[in-house]
Amino acid sequence: MPEHFADRIIDICQKKDSRLVLGFDPVYSKLPAAITEQKELNDELDCEASLDAIMEFGRKVFTLVADHVVAVKMNLAFFERYLWDGLDTYYSLIQEAKALGLEVIADAKRCDIGSTASAYADGLLANPSFVNMDDLAGPDAITVNPYCGLEGVEPFIDVAAEQHKGVFVLVRSSNPSGADIQDFADADGKRFFEHVGEHVASWASASRLIGQSGFSCVGMVVGATKPDDLELLRERCPQMLFLVPGYGAQGGTAADCARGFRTDGLGTLVSSSRAIIYAFDRPEYVEMFSGDWEAAIQRAAADMQKELNEALTARQSS
Amino acid sequence: MPEHFADRIIDICQKKDSRLVLGFDPVYSKLPAAITEQKELNDELDCEASLDAIMEFGRKVFTLVADHVVAVKMNLAFFERYLWDGLDTYYSLIQEAKALGLEVIADAKRCDIGSTASAYADGLLANPSFVNMDDLAGPDAITVNPYCGLEGVEPFIDVAAEQHKGVFVLVRSSNPSGADIQDFADADGKRFFEHVGEHVASWASASRLIGQSGFSCVGMVVGATKPDDLELLRERCPQMLFLVPGYGAQGGTAADCARGFRTDGLGTLVSSSRAIIYAFDRPEYVEMFSGDWEAAIQRAAADMQKELNEALTARQSS
Repeated sequence: MPEHFADRIIDICQKKDSRLVLGFDPVYSKLPAAITEQKELNDELDCEASLDAIMEFGRKVFTLVADHVVAVKMNLAFFERYLWDGLDTYYSLIQEAKALGLEVIADAKRCDIGSTASAYADGLLANPSFVNMDDLAGPDAITVNPYCGLEGVEPFIDVAAEQHKGVFVLVRSSNPSGADIQDFADADGKRFFEHVGEHVASWASASRLIGQSGFSCVGMVVGATKPDDLELLRERCPQMLFLVPGYGAQGGTAADCARGFRTDGLGTLVSSSRAIIYAFDRPEYVEMFSGDWEAAIQRAAADMQKELNEALTARQSS
Repeated sequence: MPEHFADRIIDICQKKDSRLVLGFDPVYSKLPAAITEQKELNDELDCEASLDAIMEFGRKVFTLVADHVVAVKMNLAFFERYLWDGLDTYYSLIQEAKALGLEVIADAKRCDIGSTASAYADGLLANPSFVNMDDLAGPDAITVNPYCGLEGVEPFIDVAAEQHKGVFVLVRSSNPSGADIQDFADADGKRFFEHVGEHVASWASASRLIGQSGFSCVGMVVGATKPDDLELLRERCPQMLFLVPGYGAQGGTAADCARGFRTDGLGTLVSSSRAIIYAFDRPEYVEMFSGDWEAAIQRAAADMQKELNEALTARQSS
């Protein structure tokens, strides 16, 4: 297993023939009945039973999809809502994912300056090193927000460089109203997200950050729902890993996502959350598996892995 | 005490004759020796002893400055670095501050979309409502990041409107490299942060968000280190509360901060962290109080309250 984050990602992509990332953003009320029946809430706000159910669900889902996905992306919001108990579950799930050989991406999108950004980088990306928590691994990579410029991102890059981890900087979000902010354009028609992309690409290009694969450990987040912009950024930033959310429930298609790949098929991780973890509620799988939620989730991951590979092949031969 | 967040802030400002906010971003190694000697670490990464010291320091500092400040702003990064134990301390300190009649601002700068933004709003701004944590109050307001547009901010605004809380949207950061991102300008010379400011002002103007004071419960964060921009935004956004960081250690002066006030003296909260909580290390106080760290902190808060009031009076009469 290569040491550098980007090299590890490329290696796993090639070994598994997958570019898919599992987005694990669990909401108790949407979990399979077979799990929530065993972990019934005393009250709709029963934190302990909710987290027990999320833990059991996560452990099973990770095992079911491990052959089909490169990494698990967990959004901290879905754990922080349960305060300290939620963070405990989040770290337990990181250990579960790593035991299965999956890379773990913390979707945190943090943004602050100076000493505060350093505190976030120490707390959320570095491996925890407290004497009473010394068996914990931190995530392999984190998402951050570029609003405060390099000072807000550099502490994360430093941790990544030292601990063989990765940083994905938000450039283009997948939601409709993001455009109100990100499409602001200069006199030449260059839009704000392109301007941000230029800065991020320059931060990523330092030689200490580049692995043997030629990719930097600093990548960017670019939504699948804006495929023209995805292709544009890919052309301009061939050395960067892209993390592409919005495939599936948010409306991005496999063909849209394929526009983020380099012609050699490398460089992009495509994340899907609801379309996989709640696959047992998707009409096409409900009948096929007549209530077997585990089979539905496994099949959804396998199908999305395959769809992405087919879309990539189609694009390479076009 | 008025119910609406902005009305409460204005009321406290007038009663205390203060516009100062305590930024509480504690780092164990910088705490007074009198505290760390009592809470010695077994190892430099002793999480429990570090948090015991931070808790004791916070409790004392809040009491010392309560007459001089309107609110306490706590940055989550300095607590999240201690994982679940840190969040526990953070919530304990919220209860301490509220018991002293201080408003509490969670400096979180979160940014995400749709269901994720809702999860953050539920977890970090709403009052926790889990059955096993039912005595906890959440913070009174939170800072958020506008990169994803209205969809990323609206869930926080909804919680604020329902629970009489506030939201401060980051518009202009106080750090030097923020300008690389925020100064991007259109053909008319309008800069990106002005564009964001226009959107935020429009989100804030909904009538359901306006209190009897005329201020919205949606405000903005504008750094003290760019006083021209602070004045510009104040002229354009008279109905918005401004949270102004960067006074003191970051280089913003009282005269700079005063340019954020309306001519009636209202509307701006000025935050200072290091210049107050580590006042016992500031040369001007070291000799004056010969090691009495509590006296130094209390005096620093009183001095900064007074400096701001004098700068406001000077500006009003100029």
